[in-house]
Amino acid sequence: MMTGQTLCSFTQLQNMLQGRETLQHAMLLCYTSSMKPQNTAVLLIQCPDRDGIIANVTALLSRLGANIVYLDQHTDHECGMFFMRVEWDLEHFSVDLNDFQTIFIHESVRKFMMTWELHRHKDKQRMAIFVSKYAHCFLDLLSRWRTGDLAVDIPLVISNHEDLQKDAKLFGIPFIHLKITPTNHEEQTTEQLRLLEEYRIDFLVLARYMQIVSPPLIERYHNRIINIHHSFLPGFPGAKPYHQAHTRGVKIIGATSHYVTEELDAGPIIEQDVQRVNHSFSIDDLIRTGQDIERRVLARAVLAHLEHRVLCYDNRTVVFS
Amino acid sequence: MMTGQTLCSFTQLQNMLQGRETLQHAMLLCYTSSMKPQNTAVLLIQCPDRDGIIANVTALLSRLGANIVYLDQHTDHECGMFFMRVEWDLEHFSVDLNDFQTIFIHESVRKFMMTWELHRHKDKQRMAIFVSKYAHCFLDLLSRWRTGDLAVDIPLVISNHEDLQKDAKLFGIPFIHLKITPTNHEEQTTEQLRLLEEYRIDFLVLARYMQIVSPPLIERYHNRIINIHHSFLPGFPGAKPYHQAHTRGVKIIGATSHYVTEELDAGPIIEQDVQRVNHSFSIDDLIRTGQDIERRVLARAVLAHLEHRVLCYDNRTVVFS
Amino acid sequence: MMTGQTLCSFTQLQNMLQGRETLQHAMLLCYTSSMKPQNTAVLLIQCPDRDGIIANVTALLSRLGANIVYLDQHTDHECGMFFMRVEWDLEHFSVDLNDFQTIFIHESVRKFMMTWELHRHKDKQRMAIFVSKYAHCFLDLLSRWRTGDLAVDIPLVISNHEDLQKDAKLFGIPFIHLKITPTNHEEQTTEQLRLLEEYRIDFLVLARYMQIVSPPLIERYHNRIINIHHSFLPGFPGAKPYHQAHTRGVKIIGATSHYVTEELDAGPIIEQDVQRVNHSFSIDDLIRTGQDIERRVLARAVLAHLEHRVLCYDNRTVVFS
Amino acid sequence: MMTGQTLCSFTQLQNMLQGRETLQHAMLLCYTSSMKPQNTAVLLIQCPDRDGIIANVTALLSRLGANIVYLDQHTDHECGMFFMRVEWDLEHFSVDLNDFQTIFIHESVRKFMMTWELHRHKDKQRMAIFVSKYAHCFLDLLSRWRTGDLAVDIPLVISNHEDLQKDAKLFGIPFIHLKITPTNHEEQTTEQLRLLEEYRIDFLVLARYMQIVSPPLIERYHNRIINIHHSFLPGFPGAKPYHQAHTRGVKIIGATSHYVTEELDAGPIIEQDVQRVNHSFSIDDLIRTGQDIERRVLARAVLAHLEHRVLCYDNRTVVFS
Repeated sequence: MMTGQTLCSFTQLQNMLQGRETLQHAMLLCYTSSMKPQNTAVLLIQCPDRDGIIANVTALLSRLGANIVYLDQHTDHECGMFFMRVEWDLEHFSVDLNDFQTIFIHESVRKFMMTWELHRHKDKQRMAIFVSKYAHCFLDLLSRWRTGDLAVDIPLVISNHEDLQKDAKLFGIPFIHLKITPTNHEEQTTEQLRLLEEYRIDFLVLARYMQIVSPPLIERYHNRIINIHHSFLPGFPGAKPYHQAHTRGVKIIGATSHYVTEELDAGPIIEQDVQRVNHSFSIDDLIRTGQDIERRVLARAVLAHLEHRVLCYDNRTVVFS
Repeated sequence: MMTGQTLCSFTQLQNMLQGRETLQHAMLLCYTSSMKPQNTAVLLIQCPDRDGIIANVTALLSRLGANIVYLDQHTDHECGMFFMRVEWDLEHFSVDLNDFQTIFIHESVRKFMMTWELHRHKDKQRMAIFVSKYAHCFLDLLSRWRTGDLAVDIPLVISNHEDLQKDAKLFGIPFIHLKITPTNHEEQTTEQLRLLEEYRIDFLVLARYMQIVSPPLIERYHNRIINIHHSFLPGFPGAKPYHQAHTRGVKIIGATSHYVTEELDAGPIIEQDVQRVNHSFSIDDLIRTGQDIERRVLARAVLAHLEHRVLCYDNRTVVFS
Repeated sequence: MMTGQTLCSFTQLQNMLQGRETLQHAMLLCYTSSMKPQNTAVLLIQCPDRDGIIANVTALLSRLGANIVYLDQHTDHECGMFFMRVEWDLEHFSVDLNDFQTIFIHESVRKFMMTWELHRHKDKQRMAIFVSKYAHCFLDLLSRWRTGDLAVDIPLVISNHEDLQKDAKLFGIPFIHLKITPTNHEEQTTEQLRLLEEYRIDFLVLARYMQIVSPPLIERYHNRIINIHHSFLPGFPGAKPYHQAHTRGVKIIGATSHYVTEELDAGPIIEQDVQRVNHSFSIDDLIRTGQDIERRVLARAVLAHLEHRVLCYDNRTVVFS
Repeated sequence: MMTGQTLCSFTQLQNMLQGRETLQHAMLLCYTSSMKPQNTAVLLIQCPDRDGIIANVTALLSRLGANIVYLDQHTDHECGMFFMRVEWDLEHFSVDLNDFQTIFIHESVRKFMMTWELHRHKDKQRMAIFVSKYAHCFLDLLSRWRTGDLAVDIPLVISNHEDLQKDAKLFGIPFIHLKITPTNHEEQTTEQLRLLEEYRIDFLVLARYMQIVSPPLIERYHNRIINIHHSFLPGFPGAKPYHQAHTRGVKIIGATSHYVTEELDAGPIIEQDVQRVNHSFSIDDLIRTGQDIERRVLARAVLAHLEHRVLCYDNRTVVFS
């Protein structure tokens, strides 16, 4: 079954090594700190599946002195599409990213008809949070931001209610109250867009924001508006999902974080999680339990987005690990 | 934050495509059947981390006409080691695997000091099962084998008890009873080795086999003996883990599948799973619940091994997805 | 906050005890075997919530010499309904169950307008399995029956295909092939009912049976037909749920076991479970992963039913632990 | 198998009812709000298992006009011990709790040699938090307190470092810095005890407090000091559990909340939870993932304690649902 195999133990390998000191030094450093480089570039690619894509891109990066610290790819054989995320250390990279982009388009993008994104990982992104009255997801995001788990700037909170103004103030974050009435949608959308522009916002998080986001925002921030829905979609879409779950008597409830599209609760799913419940859970218990799921699902989705690990296609996502 | 981005929708992309028919054809096939090729080769690599490894290997494969269907890699930055699993379709591969091996050793192995394994995926492996008195894992493996979920040959069952002879017979599998006494260990080890040789066994599964496996077997089948331990290791090693779990009052129990090494219950962990329990679980309840976990953990570990997704180093595993 | 408290340690308590030997004896037996009595009666009750129900029933049982080994109750405050499961040792019970029933109706049922069931736990129930072509749930049930985990008799398997005849034979269980054609539904339903009568079947399990069960069967076996649906209901009802899940790009898939009602996939849910998946799962991978969930969800639902732990109301279930 | 059964549907039952309006009213209220009464008493009992305990207690409560809203019991057959939690509405209760206590001791406690606790549920408990440098659990508790999910007073935070002073101030909570040096343990313990007394603290939460709690505190707050340990105990006790988990290569990590006893990391476990990890997790990733588990495990343990759902015996817990 194996046509060839040259097995040697980890220890043998180390002894074999010429650059012995280097590895021993590495071993000493083991378990004291992660040495993952922080000044990296991330390239996200999607294109029709063909032979030689990985070879093409890695050869290009290698030629330019990149040390690849992460590479993962996925082929959707059912649709014939190829997806890749590659991240490399910029320390010994021989060109700057603008020049790399030119070369990359010339040597790879055109050849394979790629859709692509290029990010410099150390830049902090600017996230706006939209809230209404529920505090749980909002406070959770702010706590994680404060502990440094979410390495992001939060220059702006927009709300259609004043309830959470004090919470934003606690953390020293600008809170802007834009009341929504049956007649002022258009005007408030314009104001929202102006504010997002003024604060140079990269992406939006709807932390239980109880209003429909207007199409101009969705278009402007295509696949950059993250919502948390309080059910395990596609089960119980629409209003009052915990009441629906209670009536149906499900044994597990969940929450879903997805990018916002014009079709309500139907955008590409980024993350979901669930928790076991039983008959003894009242609707209030379901809500309380569910809010805990919402917290962690939204936090994970925001983190995946921040780290450029999400690719969208065909109303689905590839979320690299 | 983004230095460059050329976003286009999935639909735009399709329209853009020149080879339009091909993709449309692919789209038609969508959701009717997985088109993952079955005649593939798998290469598992580990070596000290250096620049250019991925580029080197993918360029070689690309040059030889390989269509890569899977590539995943992992760098352990703490220890400076690099790991890769690459799988490619053999249909248009221009050399046979023996020749590939020669070229690969010449162009990659020596340069990067690689430890490696090469497998042809379509070959069915030959698995021996060791059992004692517990039937649950044994019957589960046989059921999955019968439904085709485990694409493996099972030419041999060895047991130190006669209890499960009837179960083996149900499924038409040779069952050999090798009684272990305080004085016949050495002789039975010799007989076990002879049988494994005679039946050309590739790897062993201990499905709740209640005897210590002898060092000569462990040496002969290095990282190819899969055990299921009935606790969430490293908690509760040794005997009667469910009794230990009950005494300690844990709220979650688990099971662990690992490769067997000379140190008991301490080999590289392949797979673990857990389940929530509570004070109302008697020891018998824990055992019954735990057996269900054992079943699925062992099945998953065997599957990962079969599909050449496991790499061992430093008494740990890399299990590719 | 505490208005009263007389705390003493577990050890102090033991020393305090007059019947010291008894407890010490019990302690010695600790961890050697579960002493849960097996000759018990189970009473399931539901009625409008009122004061004094628990006191009424436990006082009656106490007066008749019952040692209660399990009591759990649930009040649905939203609907004002009360539910209880009580199980007691029959060894020193002073009346037989027929007499108890008479007394119980007289003293409790009428007073509280109870719906109730009374079961003797040691009687083995007779389960029929309906199958089609998929073997995984069927073999799993048979394996658990063989290991003794499902303490049930299986006198009959009915199938609309011949594929699993050999599997039934392996385990020595009568297999009856009742082919369903567009025109013979009524006649085959009559035959099914006749067989279930002849074999004195207590309840039915549809182990991936791919036909609609006829209303006369549903009526005859009200809340005694257990189905396994291969999605996390209410998501993806109907046909091909794994294909639907793949298209929607969910990050978790599941399975649901429920009692069969005339409305398809909408009966009271007994048990559900889920598993995390990601973009790399093809439809075939989802099916394989899902089948593993189906296996354990169905097994748990059957076990809960067997142990008289399930109460139905308002198209939901109370599943006592 | 069933000796008797009077099944009627939920709808039939409702029509049968005389007090029809009451139930219909109840049905109207269905799904609008939980009607669980908030002015309740909770009684926790443990004693050697004997016949008639439930009947005795429920008859007493019934006689005094209690409407029982929760009753759950557990018998540890291996040790012959009985445990019960009963909660009843105080609205129509005919005696005050001091009088009830006297009657209860007279009629139940002496007869069954009970250890017991009696609590009035509406009283808010006073919780002190001990912290060091890690903010994640601390901020999570404060967020849940602010959203009202933890209905508790937090009059005091004690820390051996000044790092989290600002965070406490954000939420307006007194923060007292008690630096621990190799020589001042005894004196700081005295000061801690004095503060806990002064602030009338009911129970303590160690939110990643990195100091050993002194025996006098443990004795004074027996089973009322809740710790969060950052491993799935009993695996990886002691220091640096995430480093240990990384070295051992486990596939699941966890966290454990337990009451503090004099033996380190060995007190009665209240709650545990886990999360799947894999080879790609660096130590930093394990720490970050683990902190998320710590957050929710500690929050659940604190909630269970607050709601008087935890009983300790034999270094284990019964945690009622």
